[in-house]
Amino acid sequence: MELNGVEIEDTFAEAFPIKIARILITGATKRWALVAAQEATGFGTSVIMCPAEAGVEKVVNCNETPDGRPGAYIQICTFGFKSLEEQLLKRLGQCVLTAPTAAMWNGLPNAEKQFDTGFKLKFFGDGFESETNIGGRKAYKIPMMQGDFIAEHGIGAQEGIAGGNFFIMADNQMAALAAAENAVDAIAQLDGTITPFPGGIVASGSKVGFTNYKFMKATTNEKFSPSIKAKIKDTQVPADVNAIYEIVINGLSVEAISKSMKAGIEAAVMIPGVKKISAGNYGGTLGPHKFSLHGLF
Amino acid sequence: MELNGVEIEDTFAEAFPIKIARILITGATKRWALVAAQEATGFGTSVIMCPAEAGVEKVVNCNETPDGRPGAYIQICTFGFKSLEEQLLKRLGQCVLTAPTAAMWNGLPNAEKQFDTGFKLKFFGDGFESETNIGGRKAYKIPMMQGDFIAEHGIGAQEGIAGGNFFIMADNQMAALAAAENAVDAIAQLDGTITPFPGGIVASGSKVGFTNYKFMKATTNEKFSPSIKAKIKDTQVPADVNAIYEIVINGLSVEAISKSMKAGIEAAVMIPGVKKISAGNYGGTLGPHKFSLHGLF
Amino acid sequence: MELNGVEIEDTFAEAFPIKIARILITGATKRWALVAAQEATGFGTSVIMCPAEAGVEKVVNCNETPDGRPGAYIQICTFGFKSLEEQLLKRLGQCVLTAPTAAMWNGLPNAEKQFDTGFKLKFFGDGFESETNIGGRKAYKIPMMQGDFIAEHGIGAQEGIAGGNFFIMADNQMAALAAAENAVDAIAQLDGTITPFPGGIVASGSKVGFTNYKFMKATTNEKFSPSIKAKIKDTQVPADVNAIYEIVINGLSVEAISKSMKAGIEAAVMIPGVKKISAGNYGGTLGPHKFSLHGLF
Amino acid sequence: MELNGVEIEDTFAEAFPIKIARILITGATKRWALVAAQEATGFGTSVIMCPAEAGVEKVVNCNETPDGRPGAYIQICTFGFKSLEEQLLKRLGQCVLTAPTAAMWNGLPNAEKQFDTGFKLKFFGDGFESETNIGGRKAYKIPMMQGDFIAEHGIGAQEGIAGGNFFIMADNQMAALAAAENAVDAIAQLDGTITPFPGGIVASGSKVGFTNYKFMKATTNEKFSPSIKAKIKDTQVPADVNAIYEIVINGLSVEAISKSMKAGIEAAVMIPGVKKISAGNYGGTLGPHKFSLHGLF
Repeated sequence: MELNGVEIEDTFAEAFPIKIARILITGATKRWALVAAQEATGFGTSVIMCPAEAGVEKVVNCNETPDGRPGAYIQICTFGFKSLEEQLLKRLGQCVLTAPTAAMWNGLPNAEKQFDTGFKLKFFGDGFESETNIGGRKAYKIPMMQGDFIAEHGIGAQEGIAGGNFFIMADNQMAALAAAENAVDAIAQLDGTITPFPGGIVASGSKVGFTNYKFMKATTNEKFSPSIKAKIKDTQVPADVNAIYEIVINGLSVEAISKSMKAGIEAAVMIPGVKKISAGNYGGTLGPHKFSLHGLF
Repeated sequence: MELNGVEIEDTFAEAFPIKIARILITGATKRWALVAAQEATGFGTSVIMCPAEAGVEKVVNCNETPDGRPGAYIQICTFGFKSLEEQLLKRLGQCVLTAPTAAMWNGLPNAEKQFDTGFKLKFFGDGFESETNIGGRKAYKIPMMQGDFIAEHGIGAQEGIAGGNFFIMADNQMAALAAAENAVDAIAQLDGTITPFPGGIVASGSKVGFTNYKFMKATTNEKFSPSIKAKIKDTQVPADVNAIYEIVINGLSVEAISKSMKAGIEAAVMIPGVKKISAGNYGGTLGPHKFSLHGLF
Repeated sequence: MELNGVEIEDTFAEAFPIKIARILITGATKRWALVAAQEATGFGTSVIMCPAEAGVEKVVNCNETPDGRPGAYIQICTFGFKSLEEQLLKRLGQCVLTAPTAAMWNGLPNAEKQFDTGFKLKFFGDGFESETNIGGRKAYKIPMMQGDFIAEHGIGAQEGIAGGNFFIMADNQMAALAAAENAVDAIAQLDGTITPFPGGIVASGSKVGFTNYKFMKATTNEKFSPSIKAKIKDTQVPADVNAIYEIVINGLSVEAISKSMKAGIEAAVMIPGVKKISAGNYGGTLGPHKFSLHGLF
Repeated sequence: MELNGVEIEDTFAEAFPIKIARILITGATKRWALVAAQEATGFGTSVIMCPAEAGVEKVVNCNETPDGRPGAYIQICTFGFKSLEEQLLKRLGQCVLTAPTAAMWNGLPNAEKQFDTGFKLKFFGDGFESETNIGGRKAYKIPMMQGDFIAEHGIGAQEGIAGGNFFIMADNQMAALAAAENAVDAIAQLDGTITPFPGGIVASGSKVGFTNYKFMKATTNEKFSPSIKAKIKDTQVPADVNAIYEIVINGLSVEAISKSMKAGIEAAVMIPGVKKISAGNYGGTLGPHKFSLHGLF
């Protein structure tokens, strides 16, 4: 199968369950909402060694938020609800409550699982805080140096999916990178997904386990490493490919991830020099979710 | 004392020792170097509940880096060297090694304390990595999907200072915020300091301990909270002040923090509506470093 | 009438007819499409002394463009079709054809008035160009240093409206400015309108004619000038207002301008310190279009 | 000669005299100074069909400006002083006087040629303006809606140079483009030069005159057009090159342009996929200034 002359490999992305909390951060302007959102989702690429996977889902306008200010949805993901609650307290308490003009709202008000993160953060108010209701949401007004911080009482979470992905293979590193940027921009317009890696892009797609270093749990994927393709017998790097970037996508549902993979791939193949789109899987042994690339179109 | 008609209070900022590692991240372009730098320094405002305090120190040009590419210095700070090493491994391994086109270099090559973070990260190469020398620096070339990741062998660290600070008090929240932005921009031009909070700005300057909630270790500073100034007997919010932002500065030396405080205050007072500059201290009980505001000028 | 506690004056914006051409510029990525769009719409605030009024209307995704790449609609406005055609040739020829990865498409393919700007620009190809069809659009492929430039044959234009506007009055300049930025961000999401001034904002709302200098056709509006309000007998600056920004809106229809005025005002009143929203008119003597502020809500 | 493994052709850039005015625009913050600077320098790529060539030279800090606010130097260039004065009046009057928080200062206070642009713009004040002195500069305070606009009395101009240039040739369009971006970023740090094309980059390097269309004065340079290299007998596009971007540099002196060409080339060759650096000349027939590429190093 080809898209804009680029081969789409007949393979699938393998993904696995994760717990996702979704928060709407508003700010005085879009720019300030994003400042808070970026700090709160930093150091959040992979749960291998980050305390959470996190990213900005989508920017929203004034008329889509409880307080009538512009905002951004973020997602924070961990494997268990306990660690998720801890991450919510830490990331919202240290990176949103502290951020200029930011307010925090429940991004999954209808989810079954609800954390009382706003309730817990209100104790920073030291007795000077008060309960309020804004846009139909029960919230706390916490007086602080800048004025008041508004925190909605609860933050919802749900079972989601981590590790949706595709590979962009190009003849030149800058082509692969521009394609990856284009894909991330396209995905950023869509509901329900994040691309948690730096700038939404993974430079270092890995394999589970090791070939040589027995003490390692995840290592470079030498079969997909262009700079050593001549030395690796069963390399999967095509002759005309010299760089590969992976886009990893977490999201709230199979549908959301499928839409984002499709939009991302359609954007990526428009860049001159892109040769092939593939995806990462472990033969179906790792995760219960399989996203067939051909099935997206 | 006045600066551009703004009162500079005769007070001091109180700061305390911290361990600081300094890393130079380079990228294909300035934009990509910053993508890695921002991910690696996110979720890094305050060690109260973040695993580290971290920020971008300064952007540098091609001719100031070992590999001739543009870059950015970042700082990562914790209270002990052990936790600092752990943060280096995690943040550089998950947010720089994974970032498109990024490379990592020792930002304190002459420091006594050196971590072998690059050496440890090379094991991701699973035996396919090799040693190299670039710009006089011993480094590792790790083949990965994008091509090679370059990591210098060591990352230096030293005793530094956390908590340099000043308060910007204005008649309007947006005035205080524009002044804070202007201050952060000015500090970003200078060597040796970071402003670790979101966008470099603290909305929620706190007090140690509590007034009402005995179980809290740090709470809102009600005496500096404009929205309740009418209710707080000994409020320190002037009658014409309705918003206060704090700039917190970490840095490598007393001189670096002094220069940044000076430049930040000079920038802040240029914004119409700024009424007063103050600073946060605990009567000298918390930290050994005291930065007199009047002494800066 | 009040909105979020801010007075909306019972007045109207007076606007007048103008000719508008609409162009869709696509690029390899959103960022590069915007580089071309910004250059092409610069030096384009007011036809008083600029050769055109121009601005970026709206960013669009890959799936909304003929070539499947991200893009931005721009509008270019002058009083007559002859000067409009000249501006199209100059601005598209010098600022889009020259811009990295840009392509140009007809933004009003169904308009009655069509200029053959693409046809004229193809002569830059010096005989090496060729006709092509992309996404159902007749276009030219012009070989150049970067590769090929794609120009659609025609660019449509229509009768539009210039000078939709509102005033944001605040107690502090930075508050008025943040409100103006928030308004411009909100309008930028909507179809059919541009805000042609720098950053979308007018600092110097003027009056027609003069009070003192007989040789001037447009001068400062002293009745709306906060810094001299004490000296102007019939000042219209409220006692608690110290800064006013005007948002000027051009657009394709009465409906488009009404929607943008409404969205802009709703965004502006959310900023603390905004006291009043008004609008600019000349008692109905200048333009045939009247936009009642109260009528918007 | 090679730089980082990239061939530097033994050729020269040919440049010619132009008149340059230099203006320092300050703003409340760096961001707002740049908003004014970008509007004022838009529609300013080439005097072939733009009313001027213009660009942002360099961002400066608070302590480098007369009013203690951050700023940006811009340059505006035309062939004669008469058209230059007209462009100053129009661009500063419509794009800086109108821009939020902007002020304008003389960027060449010691030049022999001085225009009284500030003096002329003060008449917008309609008699409500006043003379003032800020940072040792004679200036006017013009009351307007936002507050006061500050315009220095004079704007200096001098004989400068247009058309310094180099070509970046790469195997892939995105590689050439990333190299061009890197070059423009490096040049943006330096004094005295601008890169007037969109994003600083020329996609459509041209030849003087025509091959086929006798009515054209400047047309595509088919010998440097990669997409038709197979059809052009004496093509100068190397076999492994598929895209070329040109960086055009205007500046105040031979030294400034030489430094910028050198820094730009050094940055460009760091991008993987760049194959060759060349430059544009007309055999020495067009301009009196010749910049040898080898002579730069």
